[in-house]
Amino acid sequence: MSSAAVEDIAPRTKSCSVYRTVEVVGERWTNLILREAFLGVRRFDQMSKHLGIARNILSDRLGKLVDNEILERRQYSERPPRFEYRLTEKGLDLYPIVVSLMAWGDKHLDAGAGAPVELVHADCGHVMQPKMVCSHCGDDVHARNVRPQAGPGLRETA
Amino acid sequence: MSSAAVEDIAPRTKSCSVYRTVEVVGERWTNLILREAFLGVRRFDQMSKHLGIARNILSDRLGKLVDNEILERRQYSERPPRFEYRLTEKGLDLYPIVVSLMAWGDKHLDAGAGAPVELVHADCGHVMQPKMVCSHCGDDVHARNVRPQAGPGLRETA
Repeated sequence: MSSAAVEDIAPRTKSCSVYRTVEVVGERWTNLILREAFLGVRRFDQMSKHLGIARNILSDRLGKLVDNEILERRQYSERPPRFEYRLTEKGLDLYPIVVSLMAWGDKHLDAGAGAPVELVHADCGHVMQPKMVCSHCGDDVHARNVRPQAGPGLRETA
Repeated sequence: MSSAAVEDIAPRTKSCSVYRTVEVVGERWTNLILREAFLGVRRFDQMSKHLGIARNILSDRLGKLVDNEILERRQYSERPPRFEYRLTEKGLDLYPIVVSLMAWGDKHLDAGAGAPVELVHADCGHVMQPKMVCSHCGDDVHARNVRPQAGPGLRETA
C-alpha cells in the first residue's frame, strides 16, 4: 500500500467500517452469542448454559443485539411469557465474520486435533473451508493482494 | 441444521474454534490494532494517535498479540531504542476477519454515505467486495446453505 493511502485512511479510525462494526459486535460474549445463534440456538436458558455466562451479562448483550437489529425477540409462550432470539437479515449477514473467526481457529489453534466443527456446503455436499474471493474477478483475496483507498464515505466526512 | 447437530456441537462452546479465536482477538481494541496493522501502521506512537487509546492499554494489547505470534516486535532504532510491530504469517491469516468486519459495516453502518474505505484487488485492478465461497465448488457460502457437523477435533475431546 502506498504511504499516501495510509496517511489518508489510517488516522480516520472512527470513519472506518471496521471501527463501526467493532462498536456493535466487537466484544467477546457478543461473538459467542452470535456463534450460538448461527448454530440455531434461540433460547436464553440454552445460551446461558452453553456459554456459562452470567444471566445479567447475557441479557445485556442480547438487548444490545436486539437494539442493533441483529437479533429479533419473539414471544413463543404466553404462560409463562417466554421469548426467543432469531437472527434478522442484518444479523445473518454477519456470517462471514463468524466463519472467518472459526476458520482461523481451525488453522492456528486446533492443537493438532483437527477442526472441532466442520462446515458442509449444502449446495455441493462437501466439507469445505470458507475462501475469500474478489467479487469482480473471483480470484483469491488475501492481505498481500489488496490495496485500500479512500472511498465515498471518507471523502464525504473529510 | 438438524437438532442432533445442535445438541452435539452447541454445548461444547470451549471446544469450538470461534471460542478459541475470540479468546485471542475478540476484543475491541485488538480488532482496531489489527486494522492499523493491515493498513501498514507499525509504530506505537502512530497507533496511539490514530486510535486515541491509552498507552498502557495499547502496550498491553500489543504485548498479547506478540505473545500469540500475531505480531512480531522488531527494533528499528538503537538510540533511542524503538520498536515496530509487523504482522506474522499467522497474523496475516486474520485478514478475512478484518475484511468481513469492514464489509458488514460498509453494508449496514455507512449511513448512506458509501464505503469509507474501498479495497482494490491488485490482481484485477478493480474495486471489489470480498465474497465468501466454498473451497470445494467455488459457489457462494452464506448462513443458509451451510450445515455444521462435529469434526475430528470435537470427537477427540468427546
